[in-house]
Amino acid sequence: MNNFIPGTGARQLVLASGRAHPELAEAVATELGIELLPVSAYDFANSETYVRFSESVRGSDIFLLQSHTAPVNQWLMEQLLMVDAAKRGSARSVTAVAPFYAYARQDKKSRGREPISARLVADMLKTAGADRILSVDLHTPQIQGFFDGPVDHLWAMPVLVDYVRTRVDVSNAAVVSPDAGRIRVAEQWAAKLGGCPLAFVHKTRDVTRPNQAVANRVVGDVEGRDCVLVDDLIDTGGTIAEAVKVVTDAGARSVIVAATHGVLSDPAPKRLQECGASEVVVTDTLPITADKQFGCLKVLSIAPLVARAIREVFDDGSVTSLFDGNA
Amino acid sequence: MNNFIPGTGARQLVLASGRAHPELAEAVATELGIELLPVSAYDFANSETYVRFSESVRGSDIFLLQSHTAPVNQWLMEQLLMVDAAKRGSARSVTAVAPFYAYARQDKKSRGREPISARLVADMLKTAGADRILSVDLHTPQIQGFFDGPVDHLWAMPVLVDYVRTRVDVSNAAVVSPDAGRIRVAEQWAAKLGGCPLAFVHKTRDVTRPNQAVANRVVGDVEGRDCVLVDDLIDTGGTIAEAVKVVTDAGARSVIVAATHGVLSDPAPKRLQECGASEVVVTDTLPITADKQFGCLKVLSIAPLVARAIREVFDDGSVTSLFDGNA
Amino acid sequence: MNNFIPGTGARQLVLASGRAHPELAEAVATELGIELLPVSAYDFANSETYVRFSESVRGSDIFLLQSHTAPVNQWLMEQLLMVDAAKRGSARSVTAVAPFYAYARQDKKSRGREPISARLVADMLKTAGADRILSVDLHTPQIQGFFDGPVDHLWAMPVLVDYVRTRVDVSNAAVVSPDAGRIRVAEQWAAKLGGCPLAFVHKTRDVTRPNQAVANRVVGDVEGRDCVLVDDLIDTGGTIAEAVKVVTDAGARSVIVAATHGVLSDPAPKRLQECGASEVVVTDTLPITADKQFGCLKVLSIAPLVARAIREVFDDGSVTSLFDGNA
Amino acid sequence: MNNFIPGTGARQLVLASGRAHPELAEAVATELGIELLPVSAYDFANSETYVRFSESVRGSDIFLLQSHTAPVNQWLMEQLLMVDAAKRGSARSVTAVAPFYAYARQDKKSRGREPISARLVADMLKTAGADRILSVDLHTPQIQGFFDGPVDHLWAMPVLVDYVRTRVDVSNAAVVSPDAGRIRVAEQWAAKLGGCPLAFVHKTRDVTRPNQAVANRVVGDVEGRDCVLVDDLIDTGGTIAEAVKVVTDAGARSVIVAATHGVLSDPAPKRLQECGASEVVVTDTLPITADKQFGCLKVLSIAPLVARAIREVFDDGSVTSLFDGNA
Amino acid sequence: MNNFIPGTGARQLVLASGRAHPELAEAVATELGIELLPVSAYDFANSETYVRFSESVRGSDIFLLQSHTAPVNQWLMEQLLMVDAAKRGSARSVTAVAPFYAYARQDKKSRGREPISARLVADMLKTAGADRILSVDLHTPQIQGFFDGPVDHLWAMPVLVDYVRTRVDVSNAAVVSPDAGRIRVAEQWAAKLGGCPLAFVHKTRDVTRPNQAVANRVVGDVEGRDCVLVDDLIDTGGTIAEAVKVVTDAGARSVIVAATHGVLSDPAPKRLQECGASEVVVTDTLPITADKQFGCLKVLSIAPLVARAIREVFDDGSVTSLFDGNA
Amino acid sequence: MNNFIPGTGARQLVLASGRAHPELAEAVATELGIELLPVSAYDFANSETYVRFSESVRGSDIFLLQSHTAPVNQWLMEQLLMVDAAKRGSARSVTAVAPFYAYARQDKKSRGREPISARLVADMLKTAGADRILSVDLHTPQIQGFFDGPVDHLWAMPVLVDYVRTRVDVSNAAVVSPDAGRIRVAEQWAAKLGGCPLAFVHKTRDVTRPNQAVANRVVGDVEGRDCVLVDDLIDTGGTIAEAVKVVTDAGARSVIVAATHGVLSDPAPKRLQECGASEVVVTDTLPITADKQFGCLKVLSIAPLVARAIREVFDDGSVTSLFDGNA
Repeated sequence: MNNFIPGTGARQLVLASGRAHPELAEAVATELGIELLPVSAYDFANSETYVRFSESVRGSDIFLLQSHTAPVNQWLMEQLLMVDAAKRGSARSVTAVAPFYAYARQDKKSRGREPISARLVADMLKTAGADRILSVDLHTPQIQGFFDGPVDHLWAMPVLVDYVRTRVDVSNAAVVSPDAGRIRVAEQWAAKLGGCPLAFVHKTRDVTRPNQAVANRVVGDVEGRDCVLVDDLIDTGGTIAEAVKVVTDAGARSVIVAATHGVLSDPAPKRLQECGASEVVVTDTLPITADKQFGCLKVLSIAPLVARAIREVFDDGSVTSLFDGNA
Repeated sequence: MNNFIPGTGARQLVLASGRAHPELAEAVATELGIELLPVSAYDFANSETYVRFSESVRGSDIFLLQSHTAPVNQWLMEQLLMVDAAKRGSARSVTAVAPFYAYARQDKKSRGREPISARLVADMLKTAGADRILSVDLHTPQIQGFFDGPVDHLWAMPVLVDYVRTRVDVSNAAVVSPDAGRIRVAEQWAAKLGGCPLAFVHKTRDVTRPNQAVANRVVGDVEGRDCVLVDDLIDTGGTIAEAVKVVTDAGARSVIVAATHGVLSDPAPKRLQECGASEVVVTDTLPITADKQFGCLKVLSIAPLVARAIREVFDDGSVTSLFDGNA
Repeated sequence: MNNFIPGTGARQLVLASGRAHPELAEAVATELGIELLPVSAYDFANSETYVRFSESVRGSDIFLLQSHTAPVNQWLMEQLLMVDAAKRGSARSVTAVAPFYAYARQDKKSRGREPISARLVADMLKTAGADRILSVDLHTPQIQGFFDGPVDHLWAMPVLVDYVRTRVDVSNAAVVSPDAGRIRVAEQWAAKLGGCPLAFVHKTRDVTRPNQAVANRVVGDVEGRDCVLVDDLIDTGGTIAEAVKVVTDAGARSVIVAATHGVLSDPAPKRLQECGASEVVVTDTLPITADKQFGCLKVLSIAPLVARAIREVFDDGSVTSLFDGNA
Repeated sequence: MNNFIPGTGARQLVLASGRAHPELAEAVATELGIELLPVSAYDFANSETYVRFSESVRGSDIFLLQSHTAPVNQWLMEQLLMVDAAKRGSARSVTAVAPFYAYARQDKKSRGREPISARLVADMLKTAGADRILSVDLHTPQIQGFFDGPVDHLWAMPVLVDYVRTRVDVSNAAVVSPDAGRIRVAEQWAAKLGGCPLAFVHKTRDVTRPNQAVANRVVGDVEGRDCVLVDDLIDTGGTIAEAVKVVTDAGARSVIVAATHGVLSDPAPKRLQECGASEVVVTDTLPITADKQFGCLKVLSIAPLVARAIREVFDDGSVTSLFDGNA
Repeated sequence: MNNFIPGTGARQLVLASGRAHPELAEAVATELGIELLPVSAYDFANSETYVRFSESVRGSDIFLLQSHTAPVNQWLMEQLLMVDAAKRGSARSVTAVAPFYAYARQDKKSRGREPISARLVADMLKTAGADRILSVDLHTPQIQGFFDGPVDHLWAMPVLVDYVRTRVDVSNAAVVSPDAGRIRVAEQWAAKLGGCPLAFVHKTRDVTRPNQAVANRVVGDVEGRDCVLVDDLIDTGGTIAEAVKVVTDAGARSVIVAATHGVLSDPAPKRLQECGASEVVVTDTLPITADKQFGCLKVLSIAPLVARAIREVFDDGSVTSLFDGNA
Repeated sequence: MNNFIPGTGARQLVLASGRAHPELAEAVATELGIELLPVSAYDFANSETYVRFSESVRGSDIFLLQSHTAPVNQWLMEQLLMVDAAKRGSARSVTAVAPFYAYARQDKKSRGREPISARLVADMLKTAGADRILSVDLHTPQIQGFFDGPVDHLWAMPVLVDYVRTRVDVSNAAVVSPDAGRIRVAEQWAAKLGGCPLAFVHKTRDVTRPNQAVANRVVGDVEGRDCVLVDDLIDTGGTIAEAVKVVTDAGARSVIVAATHGVLSDPAPKRLQECGASEVVVTDTLPITADKQFGCLKVLSIAPLVARAIREVFDDGSVTSLFDGNA
């Protein structure tokens, strides 16, 4: 009689979804060729959330997908509870998949006595038991450093660029950032589009005309060009819609808007439909419910990218390789 | 010239409130003879929460009051953000005051693959930076052990008992638990009321009448008695209302209901109004909004107790002494 | 030449035992079809404990079985030292198997300035390096939440119920809790036995007879019934023996006692032998040494259940499935 | 006889310095009106560092100043050893004062398989025992979120702006960022200077002249203006010197350079002296040794600001108040 | 009305004792001029330990004295429970006073698959909530590094040396280590005694006499000298008694034995009484119960030293100063 | 369609090296039959270090070899950055291989207000993400206890002894420790060499000649013997060279020096060449650069031992078995 039992060492990939964005989870599962693990999730009368996995997760590498759409705190807490349940249910590893990561814009103390909410979210995921975070286009890349462990950070830009190339004459294009703080992303777009000119919109008071109020101005040359206005997310659409107007006033031939995350809080649909852009392109990292849709909106699927990344993570492959060594 | 600067060692007590139950915070502040620290708190368009203290909290002993009413996840997250802001704002100590502690009923795995949500809440408070929790009548006292640090656990029973004594003839009273699992609390009530009889309601199938469905029965003698039906909280009121009915059917002369936490989720107000109880007594650990009120509801103020406890904590006095050595 | 060496990924299950209850460890090993890993364990002259594994544990999934019998602190420390040795010896995972978990009754602050000893035990196991706890019938299920990781919680009730069914006429049975605080367990027994009546013993002063001292009374109807008196553990036997007497005085036809853990501290054997119960049934989660045995004691083996759970844990199966989804 | 001894509660502020930038420490001490705590610090023959405080630090609030100049790893490790010594020497609180914070530019994974070095530095300070970090103009404000505790973040901009105002005709000024990623800082300068125009230098290939190599271009209008070229730090000076040239070529009337941190690695002095800027202004957050000095360099003292911040921290005042609520 | 309450900042020193060595605790309290805080401590029937402070410890600096005499695990656990109770009872700081620190000899892995028990003890104290350890003559000084926080390490040598000076003619003395591994201590004694010769006893096989068995030999010259045989502790006395014999055989004029910790496990008293030493000197870091006493034993009180150290710790003075800068 | 994807469970061993001692890493890789993982490592202009793995490390068991030669802080930080990169790059496990472990001599507080630097190094490795440390001949074995996880501790003694046996007539040998504190190692050597005599050098003032200065004396008999002077490391060589002289003066026939770590800080080469030793033997745990070499220096390769240990770790074999159960 021996004094040990040899095990198989086999591992299992499991994907489960919260209630925030089940369509995306289904699409990712289909790409992976698996079915979602059934989850029981509902709210008690007093609004406390309940979750339970309907099948064993013991020993699995589980990926818990929840996109942090409104109500954000509700879905974030649901994901934390799922992570806790997976940890206590003896999952081998737990990856929190957050295609849109909540509170990413609160990534620093802009003023004293504020929280750093994006760090708190990372710490809560860690505390609940997440070993890894997988997310798409974090508002600032420093957020990767908020988590004490691996963060697989995906870029939607290849997906967006491929589409925009089919809609814009690149030789006449200019890339425009709606805001001084987001020019880095615009610069990456300009490089991807072959080095086209760069501009940004800047809110300022013109010192040469002292009695005038603050106004937005375009810095850089957009006249006669087909402008690609880029950002990581579109929330209420105010900044973007204003930028489209300013760029148009500055003589742009056309304006197309591209962003990874379609938050599209009210009144974004109305604003964007009326702003004069030829098209507004986003991915489905967040659910685009009926009330968020409008005529010139184009939604691209992020599911293939997320599925490929999950597969690389599980197979101990390389997520970096998905982005030519840049991620 | 010396090589150090002597400090004063002075300490400051600060009380601040989230948006869940400002009336209670105001009442506690009034009891303490101070004003609440002004807090800026609101939601962004996409439902993310923002908080900021309007004055410095550096070096203070800050008490952050938030009662976890619906929407629970919203208010819990707001409190966590306040804790984080206080920690990063250099508060000397941070006490999370949660008169009603969320997820307390999810304090164990009732079945496999569930989270232990009450532990997760404790860990999140710790992670955010809370040094201490102050709460009232936790659903199970073991939750104190979920937090890695001091928990000042207050008992509302003295407040409730003092009132009930004025409404019931103790010499003819019986204390009834609506559920087998809550008898311990009923037993403490019985002792406080001078040793009156104890009973409980028990859901069962009567083996002697095999074809009958499951039904509630009273175990213990309530006939002709003025029954005090006690629990730690009333949520949708179903269990309580059913218990009132069963106890009445078993011959009780009258029934008064007493509970610490008035969760009172719909349809509790209607159920309780119609259940036949002479009065339903709760404290204001949770906000009793207009839609939760009904004719026979009596709300007692918990503010004096919370204020006394905060004062003892700050003064390095004894919270235990508030309860004759039992807390 | 390649730049890596592929490994086998093979895993090994190892079971080792402290000195507290080697018979149980042997029985579990036999059920698993393996031999125990040899351990060198002894005390130095000044009573410090020494442990060492005699064979390599590197890369193994090791289960360290120690039941916390008297002297509890001695055996708890021995288990902690074994956990530390396994961690430093590069075990892949360490499971502390504690069929009886020490200090489980100190799971809250009953009064101020007490420790929460059951949480401390969980934290010490974690600190020493335990990844998981496997235990049987924790005194309160909330103790699962004291450990920051998976707790595989086994129920002895199926084992006990199967036996009791062979000894009692279920159609005439009543389940009795010896104490108001333990009725939940009795309720589960009642359900398992097909919905038989429920009662409990309650220590009280009868307010209708004011000059009488405190006394135990049965709440619920036991007259003429074959009573099953259930608890999670029997320590000195005082409460149980008194309950047998009270139930008998109340007209019970017979009384059988069933409990998971036979702590059986002196003078339990004498008390239980003389109390009037027809039989006292426990499992061997704790060693039942010669001085603890008595005529009407029946000891059931817990080894098959523990072995099946260890096997499920190692095979990434489901411990929940052992209990029809309830554990 | 009593059963306790009342203490005084008095606190002491202590300031000690590593060997990286003792001049700054001396200047801060003078501002505070104290003497530096004597520290014994030297290297062993094999280059290991040794530190020891020559006087007791027990119970003190100690501030350990080290600016991370070259050799960075040497001075960082020295500061970590001082933090450890202070923790083990029973300091009441330990603040790591790092006027220039090392590895701040490695604040994210720009490519896969990189470290996030700035987070590692924060974690090492925490691990060694630092309770707080005090720094000036972190490369990105998100680094505040890398530390699990309070970070007092000072802004040198008021110091720099006050000086620049004396050298430039604000009504004819333009603020220029040398790089797309640093425009946010330039935007704040523009606001501080009363809303003057904003421009940035952008490295690009001109798509309209396809055979030309990549080149720097100014985006925004600088012709005839007195340009203030701003950045958080100047390292080898390549980007800055090139930007001065490009801005001059674009018709600027004059160029003054302003940055918080004068890293000034070789060949920065030569480059900057020859680049055509009228003046290069930095603070002394880093030591400006003789080999780093050059004709048009102006060094402003950061000591008064650091001293005021330390004083506010110790007195439980408000660091935020030093910056009109913005820090 | 103000928005804060200023506190007093007053602090309190509290001393409490476990059951292991109450005489020492009383002596220390007397030296400090205070009374011990009353503690309720006993064992349950199944040997689990119970502790509770009888008075509030909130806000105090509490010193919990327990010397780790046999049964070591019992007293160690009792101290851990006291630490936990103090933490949860809101003590401001908790110092574990362990005049003799358990498991100090298990401070490394002498062989594979052993625990490092002394590190585990330090980690358990930390986990339970100890902020500081205060101990006397740790077996190896590296144990200070096992605790993540301040360790106040006291030296009994001054106490012992002062006494030995009165018993030995220093000009004719030699200091002898009973073991090669403890020579460092002997070297310190030699220095304290003015530079007297040093020797050690070494177990070896004499290669020049190949057929002889292993034997102890004195390395160094002791002939005609008054030898002081020193060690940190005396456990069963075997090594010491043998060393006395070997040194006597080598021509020593007299032998006196000095050690800090009188563990004196059986059969130490008999062995030491009969070994030929003129006197055996220890301190009372451990209780010297009646069965451990013998004719030539001299016990010195450690209480004044421990009391002075506690006072320095509480007053933010310097423990180092008690030992001329060496501790 | 299934609801999971089975993985292969395959594991990969990866070895990567910092810049401190690439020759050793190459030699270890050759022994293992693999190639080193390519690493990009360099310093920025301001001396900050940059590292990046050129290939994916996801899922691998990675061993990061860096020997802590001068400049120690530089190479230690480089290793920490590699550990962080491996953790964030999703390595399955990270082993820090430090053949010579920095700061090992600062393993305790020799005086008050010092750091315990060797513990800090262990904590920093843990914080960065190391799961295990693999090192050779730690200065004191207690350092194993500074790391919260497995430490595989290799002994170079077998390598050294095998060589020395070929150079010395064991029957006439004596083993000498250069210092009272290192006799334990000498004792182990004496045992390995068949029980030859033991001596040590002791710095003392001769009390019989009171006016003489402090001097080194040999304690033990070395006259006419072939002495093996042993230590764990040779730094500046002062102690060793002095010991060779004293031993020679005491009549030794010859002296050979053996040590694991050849730190050989200036002026060690000159001192050792001139000290009179017949040969100085070290291993290559540290790089022996040209300026450190001298005529009688013999360097033995540690690579085979390190490679065997890495192989045992990866294969879940036994490192202990490499040393006959003693490591």
